[in-house]
Amino acid sequence: MTDGFDFKAYLNQARQRVEAALDGSLAPERPESLREAMRYSLLAGGKRLRPILCLAACELAGGDAEHAMPTAVALEMIHTMSLIHDDLPAMDDDDLRRGRPTNHKVYGEAVAILAGDALLTRAFEMVALRSPGVPPERLLKVVGELSLVAGAPGLVGGQVVDLESEGKEVDFDTLEYIHLHKTGALLSACVITGATIGGADPALISALRVYARGIGLAFQIIDDILDITASSEVLGKTAGKDLVADKTTYPKLLGLEESRRRADALVGEAKDVLKPWEQRAMPLLALADFITSRDR
Amino acid sequence: MTDGFDFKAYLNQARQRVEAALDGSLAPERPESLREAMRYSLLAGGKRLRPILCLAACELAGGDAEHAMPTAVALEMIHTMSLIHDDLPAMDDDDLRRGRPTNHKVYGEAVAILAGDALLTRAFEMVALRSPGVPPERLLKVVGELSLVAGAPGLVGGQVVDLESEGKEVDFDTLEYIHLHKTGALLSACVITGATIGGADPALISALRVYARGIGLAFQIIDDILDITASSEVLGKTAGKDLVADKTTYPKLLGLEESRRRADALVGEAKDVLKPWEQRAMPLLALADFITSRDR
Repeated sequence: MTDGFDFKAYLNQARQRVEAALDGSLAPERPESLREAMRYSLLAGGKRLRPILCLAACELAGGDAEHAMPTAVALEMIHTMSLIHDDLPAMDDDDLRRGRPTNHKVYGEAVAILAGDALLTRAFEMVALRSPGVPPERLLKVVGELSLVAGAPGLVGGQVVDLESEGKEVDFDTLEYIHLHKTGALLSACVITGATIGGADPALISALRVYARGIGLAFQIIDDILDITASSEVLGKTAGKDLVADKTTYPKLLGLEESRRRADALVGEAKDVLKPWEQRAMPLLALADFITSRDR
Repeated sequence: MTDGFDFKAYLNQARQRVEAALDGSLAPERPESLREAMRYSLLAGGKRLRPILCLAACELAGGDAEHAMPTAVALEMIHTMSLIHDDLPAMDDDDLRRGRPTNHKVYGEAVAILAGDALLTRAFEMVALRSPGVPPERLLKVVGELSLVAGAPGLVGGQVVDLESEGKEVDFDTLEYIHLHKTGALLSACVITGATIGGADPALISALRVYARGIGLAFQIIDDILDITASSEVLGKTAGKDLVADKTTYPKLLGLEESRRRADALVGEAKDVLKPWEQRAMPLLALADFITSRDR
């Protein structure tokens, strides 16, 4: 299905464009300490899967990926702010992220909290004030989608339930609630906002919601598996932390084998739903495999 | 100039409408603990001056105040989130706010941080998804204005400089920078967003920026004065705290008398600029006096 499509080159090129856009997005921030703290986490590397999903969905919908770039940057800002706040001592109390000290370890708790707040609002600024060439109706829909995914109905709600579940026996529904809100909702927003900017019809939007739900849950299952099987060095964060904190995970609930089977099934469903779009869906099909691969 | 205008009745009625809108704005939030923390601070009383400024500016521009109500609620949400985060132990470490324990004292730091994040994103949701009857172009401008005021160019930037200034000798420019960003920017956003929804022309927008800058600085000067002259009981927060923390304030830099003179001059200028709008500007003229009165 992906014959003739050079995914590696596609990914490489998309990443470079995203990195350049991220780098250019924070120039006027003041004061200096705040700007540094924002840049430290936003430009900390990573695979930039969320922005790339957004650009790919825009193109699948027939749009120009450049029009979706400010929104792609906004999505990475929201992702980054949620990592900064989740890592805080009052929350998950993490010292390492992507192989480097976490934001609050470098800049202190106060600036870390504020850098997160500033990235969150900056995300909305990117869409509302820095997205030339996109009709206001579409941008307003994007703002709405981002507001839901970043707040109580998304990342924040998931994090609260996650914190409340620590050290407790948690059932399967609660586990899925946490992951759909903490991971799935944002991945979904990536493709929905990209497709919206590209002018997608309702059929494509519906298909992309199914696609995103599948890869979102699969992504989290793989994450849980990696937390058990990989070492701290490979992950660049404190491995085995979920087990230490007695967090509920898929492997803990279902076992490693069944977790892997479930992830594969979810990726399969996600890809099937995009079949009607054939060749144009190739980047998103390849991304589904990549995002949920064992060595991503 | 305010003959025949019953400001007390106007304020009372506006407050009741704002309270009802605030109360109705958070119903579907989940989980329960997050919803409670959000409601605790958002519905903690207060004079609701920011939402009322927004509604008044919308009407001055010739618009229907009901159209501006979701934005008025959004402004109070942004104000509330900044108070919750500023009160945190890592920031100003305040135990009391409006005569009650601060958010983190009741719900813990983690939920307080997340309740702030959720209120901030909910503000954008109010504008983007819950503002029926307003053209998307205007709503997108409102989103842009809110994104600037809540982030690094506004509240967050002001708070960072404020924290960095503690225990230091701070010059007048830095003091004004802090207050223009922490207080003035949001008051300005109140009237600008309200006027934008009401369809204001550029002349009115310009005048309102001058108006807001004047009352914003005057408001802060009065706040500094009250911090010295009033008791904890009257303020409902820890009085004299600025002096204890060795914060730079207007009275400290200029003396009490000169601070009062400066506040009066600023209010005078703010009112002058709205004179061309005559009777229709009455609510905003009365609000300028009220906001900067000694016993507000």
